[in-house]
Amino acid sequence: MREETNPEDVEGMRAADGILTARGGMTSHAALVARGWGKCCIVGCDAVKINLEETSVTTDSYGKKKVNVSESNTVIIAGKTFHEGDLLSLNGSKGWVYDEEVKMINATENPLFQQFMKMVDKYRKMGVRTNADNPIDAQKAIDFGAEGIGLFRIEHMFYGENSEVPLEKLRNMILAETLDARVAALAELEPYVRESAKGTLKVMDGKPLTFRLMDPPLHEFVPQSEEKQREVAKARGIDFDKLHARIESLHEVNPMMGLRGVRLGIIYPEITEMQFRALFSATVELMKEGMHPMLEIMVPLTINAAELKHQKALADRVKKEVEAKYGVNFEYKFGTMIEIPRAALVANQIAEVAEFFSFGTNDLTQMTFGFSRDDVNAIVKTYVDEKIIPADPFHNFDTECVGELVKIGIERGRATRPVLKCGVCGEHGGDPTAAEFFYKAGMNYVSCSPFRVPVARLAAAQAAIKEARENK
Amino acid sequence: MREETNPEDVEGMRAADGILTARGGMTSHAALVARGWGKCCIVGCDAVKINLEETSVTTDSYGKKKVNVSESNTVIIAGKTFHEGDLLSLNGSKGWVYDEEVKMINATENPLFQQFMKMVDKYRKMGVRTNADNPIDAQKAIDFGAEGIGLFRIEHMFYGENSEVPLEKLRNMILAETLDARVAALAELEPYVRESAKGTLKVMDGKPLTFRLMDPPLHEFVPQSEEKQREVAKARGIDFDKLHARIESLHEVNPMMGLRGVRLGIIYPEITEMQFRALFSATVELMKEGMHPMLEIMVPLTINAAELKHQKALADRVKKEVEAKYGVNFEYKFGTMIEIPRAALVANQIAEVAEFFSFGTNDLTQMTFGFSRDDVNAIVKTYVDEKIIPADPFHNFDTECVGELVKIGIERGRATRPVLKCGVCGEHGGDPTAAEFFYKAGMNYVSCSPFRVPVARLAAAQAAIKEARENK
Repeated sequence: MREETNPEDVEGMRAADGILTARGGMTSHAALVARGWGKCCIVGCDAVKINLEETSVTTDSYGKKKVNVSESNTVIIAGKTFHEGDLLSLNGSKGWVYDEEVKMINATENPLFQQFMKMVDKYRKMGVRTNADNPIDAQKAIDFGAEGIGLFRIEHMFYGENSEVPLEKLRNMILAETLDARVAALAELEPYVRESAKGTLKVMDGKPLTFRLMDPPLHEFVPQSEEKQREVAKARGIDFDKLHARIESLHEVNPMMGLRGVRLGIIYPEITEMQFRALFSATVELMKEGMHPMLEIMVPLTINAAELKHQKALADRVKKEVEAKYGVNFEYKFGTMIEIPRAALVANQIAEVAEFFSFGTNDLTQMTFGFSRDDVNAIVKTYVDEKIIPADPFHNFDTECVGELVKIGIERGRATRPVLKCGVCGEHGGDPTAAEFFYKAGMNYVSCSPFRVPVARLAAAQAAIKEARENK
Repeated sequence: MREETNPEDVEGMRAADGILTARGGMTSHAALVARGWGKCCIVGCDAVKINLEETSVTTDSYGKKKVNVSESNTVIIAGKTFHEGDLLSLNGSKGWVYDEEVKMINATENPLFQQFMKMVDKYRKMGVRTNADNPIDAQKAIDFGAEGIGLFRIEHMFYGENSEVPLEKLRNMILAETLDARVAALAELEPYVRESAKGTLKVMDGKPLTFRLMDPPLHEFVPQSEEKQREVAKARGIDFDKLHARIESLHEVNPMMGLRGVRLGIIYPEITEMQFRALFSATVELMKEGMHPMLEIMVPLTINAAELKHQKALADRVKKEVEAKYGVNFEYKFGTMIEIPRAALVANQIAEVAEFFSFGTNDLTQMTFGFSRDDVNAIVKTYVDEKIIPADPFHNFDTECVGELVKIGIERGRATRPVLKCGVCGEHGGDPTAAEFFYKAGMNYVSCSPFRVPVARLAAAQAAIKEARENK
């Protein structure tokens, strides 16, 4: 329980089974973190007043469904006082707080839930995939009914626990000042990427897995403070001034619209080549083990067909090399993100090369609104308060304009390639209010975080039922 | 003469009558600076090899139209050796270098030029305005035939010479932490804005003048280094830590898509209010002097109609207050920039409030491509070299996609308001290759820097003649 949470509370939130805050709304820190983790959370319960010095909570009476309160330094619910260590139960869907431990069951083991989801899938037409970058999340998503991975961010291989070694190698790649140095760094990264890809491809055996080529904010992978830079220079036995100059040269005024995505792969084709080689090798090695990897690779930040042709030529060459090396032929799908407005407008040309589109609605929202997600939180709050916009477009999909670009992208893409597979990745993929829009726009699937998969399945079924009724 | 220029050469370039570089293309530093200043410039004349230590130039022989060279430490043109102080003449349109002083005449005093431009205007249908932020540039543009100002950037009042006092006051506004402090800073700025506006309105008497509400990158107006911040804190008698914290709070990851334009005016309505009051007062005071100011005000970075309604309500109130104070009623036009993709898509709604649209093709190009103009120079160079894109979209307007958004904006805007006046400001307004596109799209005018006005007039005439021929 907290007045509201901030990043310093994250470890406590991780340890908690549920989170209850006195302030905040659907875009507050607690809500965002909890949603990502699939953790039960109630925010903005304004009856809660926390006295941190006393490590206790007080609340006011709001009837059956709300928390009752009497005096400070205690929590009183329906006449009952709670202290640290006492048990409450939360229903995050309804925003209900119970004054006792309510008996619960794991959703994936709940027969009623399973029965309900079976019914849901009977009506559902749109596919549901997940965004996952490791075997654990992939397995979790399958348990929740995901039919594939719509977004595996290769650079995420280098995050999280036990990532120190590969992160250091990735730094070598970024800081390399010559082609030779970069190629050497990439050669060290390749087996790591291959093995990491194999790990998740195994879990997803027989189900499609879309890898997005690396789209890392380069400067985030290098130390920013002088102190840290001196440490890294010393550890690597290189000159601080040289390291500092290279890091400075990576600085961008607006990194969101700078050297990212496919641009990186065109300026440094060797970076894409390594990824193709690692993913193709992973696929062939699994095939030799008798498995059925369904590899899909997509190019991020595309603005036109020429970029894709450039990368596809590279992929074609590497594919032949890998097939020759292993003596095994294989299939895979080559596609692209549609996340820049320009890409939606020339989707007819892009579909000449791309076999599938994945709409990156986060970036598409950023560019369509001119809203930097990192910077406009306060602006969006004022805009919603002043009724300038109905909701935060990063949470509630803007069907009006970002939606128009999505529709244009699908229509033009399918004008060239009628069977073009289209999906959504990014947080809007799990937004139930957007599901109907995506379904009507003709999406083949939405892809969302593992815990949102059941919600996305239900929303997709509801959209199909609604359409069937409207067509009656 | 330079191998190529960089910002350190700017004062030398300012002093020069012409600029000749050995390297570079149309987007190189020398070309950009010279174009802005209307100065004659030839770049990428690869015969030129400069020995800086000897302050001399060598070139190779390329026949009549090119520079001849024999030995180092001298310039030889058609058998003639040049040293520092010797005279060459340049024809920037043709890229010709002459080995002598060619007699020249000021274009605005050239009777043949005047006669030609009269002929041009006989055929021209699209208007030509200028981008100018002070009386001197405004007069220059009128001499070149500009019919109005399409873009007066209010924050430019605080740039350039003699701007120390107002810049300090602007800083007060930006650094203010309370509404009271901001209102006090604005009160000090208001007379300065009013007088500055009057100066240019006087020059433009009887011609339309479009002011764009302030759209400053806030962080650029405050000192970034600790040393400078300590100086400013001391000079202002405030606590360094407080100043530093306020400046840090202004930092944005992607300032291009952050707190800018109308967002500033919605978060801090008092900033817009000051501008409305200053511009309205300037207008009424000039009317009282018997002049005919044609005031137009436009809102930058708009994403929907609600933003405009918010600002228009403010304008309506201030207008009544100013009219009551001076006892004079006045007219002005209220419009908006269309520079964010979203604005083009909801142009039908925006036109319910806006009386005119000015397409900001620079920002529209940035958002449509996801290209940060500050960061993608090297990327664009590689993209052009690799034939991924045909040209730098910041110089050659992208008629395909940015153009499609412009067309959508005009069509939807006029569906609501058939007489909606539409123009282009930004560098593409002076791009002769884009003139035909803008004319066919239905633009009422283009607006460009003063020195590009004659070129824009000619290009507009050519577009009209071409259309007349096609319709025959």
